[in-house]
Amino acid sequence: MKINNKQYRSIWLEAGGVFPQIIDQTKLPHAFQIMTLTTVEEVYNAIRNMNLRGAPLIGAAGAYGMALAMHFDPSDASLHSSCEYLSSARPTAVNLVWACERMREDLVNLAEEKRRERAYAFAAELCDEDVAINSAIGDYGLQLIEEIAAKKEGETIHILTHCNAGWLATVDWGTALAPIYKAHDKGIPVHVWVDETRPRSQGANLTAFELSSHGVPHTLIVDNAGGHLMQHGMVDLCFVGTDRTTRHGDVCNKIGTYLKALAAHDNHVPFYVCLPSPTFDWTMDNAFKEIPIELRSGSEVTEITGAHVDTGELTTIRICSPETSGDKGNFGFDVTPAKYVTALITERGICKATTEDIARLFPEPEPETCRFMAQPDTGKAA
Amino acid sequence: MKINNKQYRSIWLEAGGVFPQIIDQTKLPHAFQIMTLTTVEEVYNAIRNMNLRGAPLIGAAGAYGMALAMHFDPSDASLHSSCEYLSSARPTAVNLVWACERMREDLVNLAEEKRRERAYAFAAELCDEDVAINSAIGDYGLQLIEEIAAKKEGETIHILTHCNAGWLATVDWGTALAPIYKAHDKGIPVHVWVDETRPRSQGANLTAFELSSHGVPHTLIVDNAGGHLMQHGMVDLCFVGTDRTTRHGDVCNKIGTYLKALAAHDNHVPFYVCLPSPTFDWTMDNAFKEIPIELRSGSEVTEITGAHVDTGELTTIRICSPETSGDKGNFGFDVTPAKYVTALITERGICKATTEDIARLFPEPEPETCRFMAQPDTGKAA
Repeated sequence: MKINNKQYRSIWLEAGGVFPQIIDQTKLPHAFQIMTLTTVEEVYNAIRNMNLRGAPLIGAAGAYGMALAMHFDPSDASLHSSCEYLSSARPTAVNLVWACERMREDLVNLAEEKRRERAYAFAAELCDEDVAINSAIGDYGLQLIEEIAAKKEGETIHILTHCNAGWLATVDWGTALAPIYKAHDKGIPVHVWVDETRPRSQGANLTAFELSSHGVPHTLIVDNAGGHLMQHGMVDLCFVGTDRTTRHGDVCNKIGTYLKALAAHDNHVPFYVCLPSPTFDWTMDNAFKEIPIELRSGSEVTEITGAHVDTGELTTIRICSPETSGDKGNFGFDVTPAKYVTALITERGICKATTEDIARLFPEPEPETCRFMAQPDTGKAA
Repeated sequence: MKINNKQYRSIWLEAGGVFPQIIDQTKLPHAFQIMTLTTVEEVYNAIRNMNLRGAPLIGAAGAYGMALAMHFDPSDASLHSSCEYLSSARPTAVNLVWACERMREDLVNLAEEKRRERAYAFAAELCDEDVAINSAIGDYGLQLIEEIAAKKEGETIHILTHCNAGWLATVDWGTALAPIYKAHDKGIPVHVWVDETRPRSQGANLTAFELSSHGVPHTLIVDNAGGHLMQHGMVDLCFVGTDRTTRHGDVCNKIGTYLKALAAHDNHVPFYVCLPSPTFDWTMDNAFKEIPIELRSGSEVTEITGAHVDTGELTTIRICSPETSGDKGNFGFDVTPAKYVTALITERGICKATTEDIARLFPEPEPETCRFMAQPDTGKAA
């Protein structure tokens, strides 16, 4: 997507073709800084410190981390240790493990001297695949917006989203924002209620920035506001992303998603989860017991960073007295039970959040066979 | 309650007995500043700018504003215009109108020369009444905590609260926090999950400050976190306040309360609303259509004030790019339907949030006869 009319992806290789580059998302929207990741450790730290985030983008970064490992040392030891090291950078999004493992499986049977070239090619393939997947999700989601547009006869369609599941969370397009971009580009009048998404305010920092940059009308709201808006008919539908979704349709996403899903359910507002198939975790049965939920530092709650209103300088403030701690309560994600999800929007189409309907779209429950590009016969969007 | 071992109320008269003084709540917890309100306009502005807030305290301030009006000019014209002016400072909490109208009714039939003295006496009476009411609410709420304590056998009881319904929101004790103070003082192990309560972060600024000052264990959480905590059995009960509650039990309170009530309902966590009877609005039938919901400036969403982490100086930061606005989505309150409220805790006892059960405790549906002190025969807590 575009920033100041220049086309960007969220991850790419610098001119030499070795080192991945990213936009430092911890500085957005106040500063636009590109980071070059020159070691496997730097990739790990960029994921861990959230210089990049978003389940699909974390997967892409993991893949380039593996390529970088092969660049420096294509041995079996390097392959295995890098895969395990990178996979451990953050626990909740399944895409990271998925991407690293796919790289390992693809490379482990190759001769060492062939691994470097194949690793870069495969990482690029994964990125292109992510873009194609998200574009397909956008096309399916667009149909839902068009259905509402037909009923509203030119009135603005109000869409609520939580956190950032835009192009900055993926390689391009985004998941939850892809349908919105496609609708806006098609001339359908859309307006987005952007949840701030405390504690890290990715809605304010990233989603609002993306929408601004692309010219999509939007309003920043606090995380508390969505329920009231839905009670008063001010939200036509919700689109959110996910970090991990079980085969039964339970959706793990940014903390607070569950509260919006409850409000949507209570007010008969459709609540859609947009996900690329790598975000399915086919191995889990009980999302509440099995998905590891990241417990992050309480300082994310007690301190907030933004641009000083007078100087514009990046500044961190404390919002409570030093005696108050945010430790032990700062969970990064929550699980929305499938019963509160109207439907899942995937690259293969739209399905109910039920075991049966997910299995209809994805009959092959093996991660490596769930590839969009490899299944053109089942994917209307291919 | 105490700050640094000194006893405070949230509003009192300075030594001369004329001008009300308050703690400037916009500076807490970073600075402790006392404001003296020397004109009716200053009272109005202090309410409007939220130097003081909380439905019961707004009522008390309105009463002292009326006394100040009588100090300067006890004429009928002054009485009526001050009543209307002060009542209009903020729209949602019914206590403000209630207190100003009670003052007017009490004073209008007095000779002008008697109004000043009576006004101060009556304002003081309203304040004392508020303290007694809240203490009674605390006693009733304590019983609920004790019931859970009996089951948990010494384990800590985890209570979630939203916004600030502590002593800073009332004259003393608080509503939602009163039971917690009473339990803590009695040696029952309680721990409070304090919702930050964006956009003005009254949880972080005021509730956490109050609990710190009194030594009550607590953790600051983002507004997004409560649902996850409830899903995982980490919340035993919720206590919140209210700005206006209808006779049918629909509860208008700080924006985001509704979302927590939904989560509590979904997870079978008791959700209690603590309210002094002046917070009932006996005149309304449809809370969703009739209660005026304050729409505040979007800058409260896009900007946050706190203490600079290095200098401690009060500093305002912007959390999104200047292209993004928070206007038109910053509603201050929402309405929680009665069906999601486990019970109401009033100064007369605990009742279900139903028309019938509220009428059982408050059989006289006239504001002026709903006074706690005037009904010792019906109030177990008197």
